[in-house]
Amino acid sequence: MSKRIVGSHAEYKRLESNILQISQEAKAQKKVYDDVIDATVGMLHHENGDVFKYQVVDDVLKMLSDEETYNYAPVRGKKTFTEGVLNWVFDKNADMIRNDFKYSIIPTTGGSGAISNTFFNFNDFGQKILLPNYYWSPYKNFALEANVELETYPMYDENSRFNIKAFREAALKLAKEQGRLSTLINDPANNPTGLCMDKEDWIEVIKVLNEVDELGYPVILIHDIAYIDFQMKDTQFSREIFETYKNLNNDVLAVVVFSGSKSFSMYGFRVGAQIGISKSQEVIDNFTRVGDYSVRGRFSSVSQPGMNVIDHIFNNKEYLDKYKTELEIGRKLLKDRAALFLKEAEAHKLDILPYCGGFFISVPTKNKNIFEDLKKDRVFVIAMQDIIRIAISSLPISDIPELVKKIKKHI
Amino acid sequence: MSKRIVGSHAEYKRLESNILQISQEAKAQKKVYDDVIDATVGMLHHENGDVFKYQVVDDVLKMLSDEETYNYAPVRGKKTFTEGVLNWVFDKNADMIRNDFKYSIIPTTGGSGAISNTFFNFNDFGQKILLPNYYWSPYKNFALEANVELETYPMYDENSRFNIKAFREAALKLAKEQGRLSTLINDPANNPTGLCMDKEDWIEVIKVLNEVDELGYPVILIHDIAYIDFQMKDTQFSREIFETYKNLNNDVLAVVVFSGSKSFSMYGFRVGAQIGISKSQEVIDNFTRVGDYSVRGRFSSVSQPGMNVIDHIFNNKEYLDKYKTELEIGRKLLKDRAALFLKEAEAHKLDILPYCGGFFISVPTKNKNIFEDLKKDRVFVIAMQDIIRIAISSLPISDIPELVKKIKKHI
Repeated sequence: MSKRIVGSHAEYKRLESNILQISQEAKAQKKVYDDVIDATVGMLHHENGDVFKYQVVDDVLKMLSDEETYNYAPVRGKKTFTEGVLNWVFDKNADMIRNDFKYSIIPTTGGSGAISNTFFNFNDFGQKILLPNYYWSPYKNFALEANVELETYPMYDENSRFNIKAFREAALKLAKEQGRLSTLINDPANNPTGLCMDKEDWIEVIKVLNEVDELGYPVILIHDIAYIDFQMKDTQFSREIFETYKNLNNDVLAVVVFSGSKSFSMYGFRVGAQIGISKSQEVIDNFTRVGDYSVRGRFSSVSQPGMNVIDHIFNNKEYLDKYKTELEIGRKLLKDRAALFLKEAEAHKLDILPYCGGFFISVPTKNKNIFEDLKKDRVFVIAMQDIIRIAISSLPISDIPELVKKIKKHI
Repeated sequence: MSKRIVGSHAEYKRLESNILQISQEAKAQKKVYDDVIDATVGMLHHENGDVFKYQVVDDVLKMLSDEETYNYAPVRGKKTFTEGVLNWVFDKNADMIRNDFKYSIIPTTGGSGAISNTFFNFNDFGQKILLPNYYWSPYKNFALEANVELETYPMYDENSRFNIKAFREAALKLAKEQGRLSTLINDPANNPTGLCMDKEDWIEVIKVLNEVDELGYPVILIHDIAYIDFQMKDTQFSREIFETYKNLNNDVLAVVVFSGSKSFSMYGFRVGAQIGISKSQEVIDNFTRVGDYSVRGRFSSVSQPGMNVIDHIFNNKEYLDKYKTELEIGRKLLKDRAALFLKEAEAHKLDILPYCGGFFISVPTKNKNIFEDLKKDRVFVIAMQDIIRIAISSLPISDIPELVKKIKKHI
């Protein structure tokens, strides 16, 4: 065959050993060998290897009416769901958002769907999205699928803090080059690094966005908060970064990405939302117009049972209290694993990137062959550039000492 | 604001009064007035207005393990699911497909996801997809979202049969103009018209595809079979059109679109699949390459509980038998409604398009204002060009005589 069967824009799409695939490989190995350590996929698991499901999710799921389970969902979702998401995500800042901003909330197939749609809708083809040099690799898939590219800046400064200077320089340069700034920040509890930016970092980020806006360029902030419920601070503190939104200039669009997968362990249901926030009604009208269209034009509507479970939990005090109690147990699981990992790392003089929460701890490495070396030792991790990512979310406590030793050996 | 916040390709996306929205309006009216007739949305309903759920789906759903419910699904789905889909769709022709063709099956977020991905991957931007002049309006949304356009040919010849002559002329013309033929056929039990092409029609369609292929152009057939289980013929006959695939030339790609929504009433779960079929391994490799990428790059993976329910039903004789028994009840519901509609239409001398199955009956009209006129009479239908579409799938028997009278009044 010499005919080009695919569209010219699809000529270079090829899924390279992606995270879910490596995880399948680890699982297969686990069936053959007893001592496989699988630190790949970002799902929260119990110590016994079972997925950390929420009992209240299970109970509500089984109580849904037929209509709530089987019917098509409205393209825009139910108001109780979308407003519930706003309250959950912004907590004590929700009223500030309602008062100071225009907003619109569009359900999506997971956080992935939200990011994919946003990459596609808010850039011209060929433009670049700015993000730190350590990032969740599927962002690259979302970008190529959307005919855009990624541009990175160094995530850390010399003190291992968020590199605001590098961000500012890269943002200004890119905006001037292409007449637009779309930038993605995955915070708090960054995947893969575990970094949490603090409020001061965010004040500076907002300043940069405003500076670019004032030069006359459209500015889109894509704020991926997938792991916000697993930051190691209490809710009131994990949400305080949103206070800095207050200072956003009129025309800037913030798209906050909610993930039902992470917050409710409903990975398999594919529920998320994109929350568009701007002081400009015109910006939000555009956000709604293209967002609705992408939902209808890509997959028609979002999981009805998935959205309804979350909707009921957000809107029923009894369920919400149960959920919060269970969430604390999940957070404690992560905390204990992280604490042991950090302790073992210190004991073995293994340097790690600063961790403040989330599903992942990252370890810098100079070994270009680290993935294969660890695989030979039956350890599965995700390797990226000069770090390896350890999914503590699915790693039993008992594996951690051995894992740290093996990493130290190959690092 | 004078900045262009959205990408230039997204400037013209605007969701116009879509079917799901009109259906919401009808539902709202129904709460206010007793005599609203809602013949809009394509979901199968019982006579009492409840969604026609399958008890076996409900039972299997509640029996899924936590892992089968909550974990991420593999991008490519489980082999038992995809092979089960192949067996179900092709029935006695499944072995022929396995022997004579290469194939690849990619799970998607409903049939919509399959069509959307295929429009996007198998055309250059700006190219046109050929389809009959009566079509399900979301195809237009899938097209615009994928940066392609639609081109139509008259669906019927002077004998109200599939217009193969018009199809051939349009296919050759378009292929010569743009160097590619992507064509979508929704058959059997077409939405909106209810047409079923017969085997002879399909023999001619395949000849045209081969003719275009022999001129050196890439040829992609998108075969949307969403309503195949609701054709009014037995399974063996509803599947006999696939026998004609045998004659497809080496390079032609057929993408058969399976809808879990229609076949299992799992509308809200968003499960479907695209089945790529070609005699060329290279074509199928390309199909898999870009299809996998779109799944990962748009929404990460498909509904785990949704796929697992269908998987279990396809792979367990007891469940499958139960399902087939329930499906017959659903088919009978449709048959009874269709029979009465046809009888009433005849009594009132209301001309309708030939109906052989599916969720919809269409009525030709010259009234450009028919949607609004019927709405004033509290009747909700979907109006397209010079027909109105009646969703008998959700229409109780008792509404039909009144509905036919009101249509006759305004037609």
